[in-house]
Amino acid sequence: MSLSMHQASVPVFLQMLNNLSAILDKADAYARNHEIDPEVLLNYRLAPDMLPFVRQIQIAADLAKGAAARLAGVEVPKHDDTEKTFADLKARITNTATFVQSIQPRDIDGSEGRDITLTLGDHTLSFKGQQYLLHFVLPNFYFHCTTAYDILRHCGVDLGKRDFIGAI
Amino acid sequence: MSLSMHQASVPVFLQMLNNLSAILDKADAYARNHEIDPEVLLNYRLAPDMLPFVRQIQIAADLAKGAAARLAGVEVPKHDDTEKTFADLKARITNTATFVQSIQPRDIDGSEGRDITLTLGDHTLSFKGQQYLLHFVLPNFYFHCTTAYDILRHCGVDLGKRDFIGAI
Repeated sequence: MSLSMHQASVPVFLQMLNNLSAILDKADAYARNHEIDPEVLLNYRLAPDMLPFVRQIQIAADLAKGAAARLAGVEVPKHDDTEKTFADLKARITNTATFVQSIQPRDIDGSEGRDITLTLGDHTLSFKGQQYLLHFVLPNFYFHCTTAYDILRHCGVDLGKRDFIGAI
Repeated sequence: MSLSMHQASVPVFLQMLNNLSAILDKADAYARNHEIDPEVLLNYRLAPDMLPFVRQIQIAADLAKGAAARLAGVEVPKHDDTEKTFADLKARITNTATFVQSIQPRDIDGSEGRDITLTLGDHTLSFKGQQYLLHFVLPNFYFHCTTAYDILRHCGVDLGKRDFIGAI
């Protein structure tokens, strides 16, 4: 057994997307039980110049989707950022997970040296596949997953570390 | 070139420990410039039942140290949780990075199937090396790094995503 690019990406994304989906259920239930307009939680930020909860989830999903597609050398599916409810965000995550799961080991293994180019605004970032996954995608993916969790915890949603890490 | 357990752990930890060290400098400067007692930031929490900043850093450091040691099959160095200042936390991170850096590819590569047993309170967790790294250590490590960052951002420290991700 040796570590592969597929093992270091697809199951990692799926685990965390699954955890986020369960976290969204808890946030939705919290809003209902406390008669909080869900939009308050969806638009909550930890600082005025940080992104709101809804964007944290959208970006986490896009990082997983983009990484799976780019490492496999297929087109990145387009998901519009139109979510207005927790149910919408759950659907976004389900769609993302379905795509990520469609990427097989044979599609992605051996992509360590694949050239990956990202355009972020005016910046162009160039990576090899392994560097892209380990030093760009995973820290960013976990950053947005954690910040989504932290926003909900700050708002009082009853979550614990096990909700974040999931079943081991 | 194929992905190795060393590549997926040691350089990943070192990159983020380095970023955390620079973030601590910014937090220290912010406290000085705003005449905030550093202890206020060190003890800040995003929710009453979440851990304070100082613990987020200590735990992130311990996850890196523990993973490097356990995957290499060497004793985990003991670092006491005695930090009272930003300088103390920077020293903790430096000591951690020095140890992590001492673990060479030959020490850790091939540890995918190594049996790893963790005792957390009353719970015993058993993993294979690869599962331990990808599904326990990395999500937890990034969780605590991100939450440390989120606490400082919530407190107004002038940080951006680039401080978290570091040079790419």
